[in-house]
Amino acid sequence: MKIVIIGGVAGGASAAARLRRLNEHAEIIMYERGSYISYANCGLPYFIGGKITDKNKLTLQTPESFQDRFRVDVRINQEVIEINRQKRTVIARDISSGSTTEENYDKLILSPGAEPVIPTIPGLNDERIFTLRTIPDTYRIHEYIQKHNVKSAVVIGGGYIGLEMLENLKNAGIEVTLMQRSQQILRMLDFDMASEVHQYLRDIDVNLILNAAINGFSSIGESLAVEYNDGSTVKADIVLLSIGVRPDSQLAKDAGLKVNIKGAIEVDPYLRTSDEHIYAIGDAIEVNNFVTNEPSHIPLAGPANKQGRIVADNIMGANTQFKGTQGTSILKLFDMTIAATGINEKAATGLNYHYDAIHTFSPSHATYYPGATFMSIKTLFDKESGRILGAQLIGFTGVDKRCDVLATAIRANMTAYDLAELELSYAPPFSSAKDPVNMIGFAIENILTNKVYQQHWADIDNVIEKVQQGQAILLDVRTPSEFERGHVDNSLHMPLDNLRSHINELNSSKEIYVYCHSGQRSYIACRILMQHGYSCYNISGGYRLYQILSY
Amino acid sequence: MKIVIIGGVAGGASAAARLRRLNEHAEIIMYERGSYISYANCGLPYFIGGKITDKNKLTLQTPESFQDRFRVDVRINQEVIEINRQKRTVIARDISSGSTTEENYDKLILSPGAEPVIPTIPGLNDERIFTLRTIPDTYRIHEYIQKHNVKSAVVIGGGYIGLEMLENLKNAGIEVTLMQRSQQILRMLDFDMASEVHQYLRDIDVNLILNAAINGFSSIGESLAVEYNDGSTVKADIVLLSIGVRPDSQLAKDAGLKVNIKGAIEVDPYLRTSDEHIYAIGDAIEVNNFVTNEPSHIPLAGPANKQGRIVADNIMGANTQFKGTQGTSILKLFDMTIAATGINEKAATGLNYHYDAIHTFSPSHATYYPGATFMSIKTLFDKESGRILGAQLIGFTGVDKRCDVLATAIRANMTAYDLAELELSYAPPFSSAKDPVNMIGFAIENILTNKVYQQHWADIDNVIEKVQQGQAILLDVRTPSEFERGHVDNSLHMPLDNLRSHINELNSSKEIYVYCHSGQRSYIACRILMQHGYSCYNISGGYRLYQILSY
Repeated sequence: MKIVIIGGVAGGASAAARLRRLNEHAEIIMYERGSYISYANCGLPYFIGGKITDKNKLTLQTPESFQDRFRVDVRINQEVIEINRQKRTVIARDISSGSTTEENYDKLILSPGAEPVIPTIPGLNDERIFTLRTIPDTYRIHEYIQKHNVKSAVVIGGGYIGLEMLENLKNAGIEVTLMQRSQQILRMLDFDMASEVHQYLRDIDVNLILNAAINGFSSIGESLAVEYNDGSTVKADIVLLSIGVRPDSQLAKDAGLKVNIKGAIEVDPYLRTSDEHIYAIGDAIEVNNFVTNEPSHIPLAGPANKQGRIVADNIMGANTQFKGTQGTSILKLFDMTIAATGINEKAATGLNYHYDAIHTFSPSHATYYPGATFMSIKTLFDKESGRILGAQLIGFTGVDKRCDVLATAIRANMTAYDLAELELSYAPPFSSAKDPVNMIGFAIENILTNKVYQQHWADIDNVIEKVQQGQAILLDVRTPSEFERGHVDNSLHMPLDNLRSHINELNSSKEIYVYCHSGQRSYIACRILMQHGYSCYNISGGYRLYQILSY
Repeated sequence: MKIVIIGGVAGGASAAARLRRLNEHAEIIMYERGSYISYANCGLPYFIGGKITDKNKLTLQTPESFQDRFRVDVRINQEVIEINRQKRTVIARDISSGSTTEENYDKLILSPGAEPVIPTIPGLNDERIFTLRTIPDTYRIHEYIQKHNVKSAVVIGGGYIGLEMLENLKNAGIEVTLMQRSQQILRMLDFDMASEVHQYLRDIDVNLILNAAINGFSSIGESLAVEYNDGSTVKADIVLLSIGVRPDSQLAKDAGLKVNIKGAIEVDPYLRTSDEHIYAIGDAIEVNNFVTNEPSHIPLAGPANKQGRIVADNIMGANTQFKGTQGTSILKLFDMTIAATGINEKAATGLNYHYDAIHTFSPSHATYYPGATFMSIKTLFDKESGRILGAQLIGFTGVDKRCDVLATAIRANMTAYDLAELELSYAPPFSSAKDPVNMIGFAIENILTNKVYQQHWADIDNVIEKVQQGQAILLDVRTPSEFERGHVDNSLHMPLDNLRSHINELNSSKEIYVYCHSGQRSYIACRILMQHGYSCYNISGGYRLYQILSY
């Protein structure tokens, strides 16, 4: 058996190693267009920021070490330029000499990855404009910064790479402007959650420009000027373009393999392309969204590595399905951690899901033990079954843990009732007796069993109108000092612990919309009001979210 | 409806608050024998060690605040001394005056907790010997230490409380000896995993005495002397007794409620005792072990709080079952984190499970990103289905996360195949593209599908005998420098990357037992050997575990 692999990073390297472990006698050839294989591509921004200083750390595997351990014939600086499906051969071009060689295969694995999207904007051809994908890109940016004493940078595009670069450039002492074409950064978040990140970035003095469509680049004096929408410009020493990635699938297209409208290579559950002898894995393929069961393009390192393993198993006779990607992702942004898993509200709305969402705000561990920080979690659930559809989490410590517990729960098709029952590890330095994930379960259960009705700030305009017309009451149940520090206009103030004694002052013919800081006290207030015959709604996310949205 | 609750901490307080949220009109009375309700009982050791300095942090709820918010009639310093099931009344005695009152109930909730086991040992009646359960206990120990300038302590019993006290006493500058009756501390761990903690404690200069049965206490000069087995003594200024807890169920027994042989109150899945009007929750009850489905006594704060919620729901008309406790627990021990969930090997053996266990050793996050530490995980699985039965984890960072993911997986009855597929959050500061939990799945899958056979150090004697008789080979595949630093006697050394070229030197009629540092390279070696016709076994846990076991 002879297996050819195109692409020597993540999925490709995983597949090669697993193939060898499964079959000591197969011939395995791995082509890599660049000079490095199996490198730490997720670590590249941290080399630029000086968090990783040793170049060897980025390239733990070399073609030699891979050959020694796995007897894989690694051919670096060789770009496969053609697949001949009839003959079952590939033609590779040596990058330096330009000479080509042909190699036959029994099975071919495509692991080409994704490439940065480069928009067509005037002035783009400037040596001060960078993208980041490979190790040479990394060294190029790093060297330019050192050599030209870079003091300012514009990052265009607030996705993962953009924000990791923002952090690392700032850590390298560079003043950074972040420009984003749409109204929010981080597509995996809904606008309300992204707003929390916007506020954080502004609080730490990042110049964040939203709704900024770039018109072009030009030189003004020594600087590179980025002109956007209204003709304004931002000047900087360098620009990093990180507006997204697309499947690097030209070779597959040229070979006539099926790709979807976005260029992602189509595969069956066994990761086979439209040619039974050719498999494809990683950031270039279309995957099933695990939650929605819809085809999707979700480029992530974790799934790519797992696909490498599955494809090797299948080539060696197994029948393993890749069951889909759920979009679990995480980002460190200075002190903040931002994570998500499953689908967000934008996706749920698009698919006409009968869903609802809750906002919870919980401490990372017992508040009486030093060092607890709060995390803000938005969880989507199916309104009938209570099945968890997705979660977005923002905080400072313990966020990765709750994301992974929720990711596991989603994988197991758990409902909110299941989350309420989860038995998670508790000691004061690590959590509370009721973990933030349990709290999500409790809060959703209360909604599913009609113990409380919710109102979202996103739909608050109707409420405000009713309040102004005297048909509804907006009730703030926080303490007097909290109320004095700020509240929503037209709110009536009645602290929770006084509610019972003043309840008769509330007109029971009016709807009551209740808020506190984060939603917990207002929930208790709603329970009191409902049992006294009031029609009332708990405003999800409380005054805390209101402030973020009005920032 | 009138509900009486006995016990105002954890489960009792949770039940009271939930009852009120569900029913604004019920009469709720909560008796607490002590002066404090709903206090931070898991935080008590940290007050003694000075990590928590503010007394108010331990007592966030007061009878007044609880009355204001939940209109619960809290009666502190009142001990319920009798339950009259026929009349449905309880008789409470005021601790200070001694006077008694009788109160009737429609439903009664017992939440008495567990009490420290006090052995019968000569000399026990000494004011320098303490136990820790309540806030007054905490203040008593704290004050004694301050007042008498305590320099040395003996902690008897290496369970959670014992080890938390050990850490906190040491942090308060006190020299601590830890004495344990059996051969290992921390019952939730198997001996091999506990040995790692023993080694850690000795490395940080804790005087650990195992197999130490206490004969008695006596005064030697100013000191308290603890005499054990062979007549040796350890002298100290104070002693903390923490040899375990037992259900505080005398009141239930006196009332004729069913208790099991260990004194734990028996309840049905709805948490009802043998009297349909009396419910019981928390550390005093017998629970179903979620993994084995056997009745069990597993006192933990998380389940107690959740039971409080369930019992309130059921009293108010719901029909919610408590599905059992899986023993998820965690301990911070200086820099170390120790966690467990599900059952361990001792339990699996006792129940004749057809199980196996694997040892994995994985980095907390990508090793190229600074700050990664390794964690040692032992995972038990069903040998037929691959279902995960339990896990024990020891490390420094990220241990709580993997424990909680595994706890969630166990709750969902996941198998090793499911762990391999879990899509967990990955970015270099948080994990690796293949998370430690995925690695567990991969490793078990390889065993289930016969890609590798395992050998455990626990059964190594037979192997050594075969090696000595020339029937087997013990093969060390680590690097020359690793081998030189230490190896198992009678090992043949052949570094993994040279294995293929020297394979003919191995006699294929002999069984080959392979080890490396942690088990990963030896697994690759086994794959090579098996495919060349050798009969071979991977030694689980590798040389690393061998060293720990021979420490």
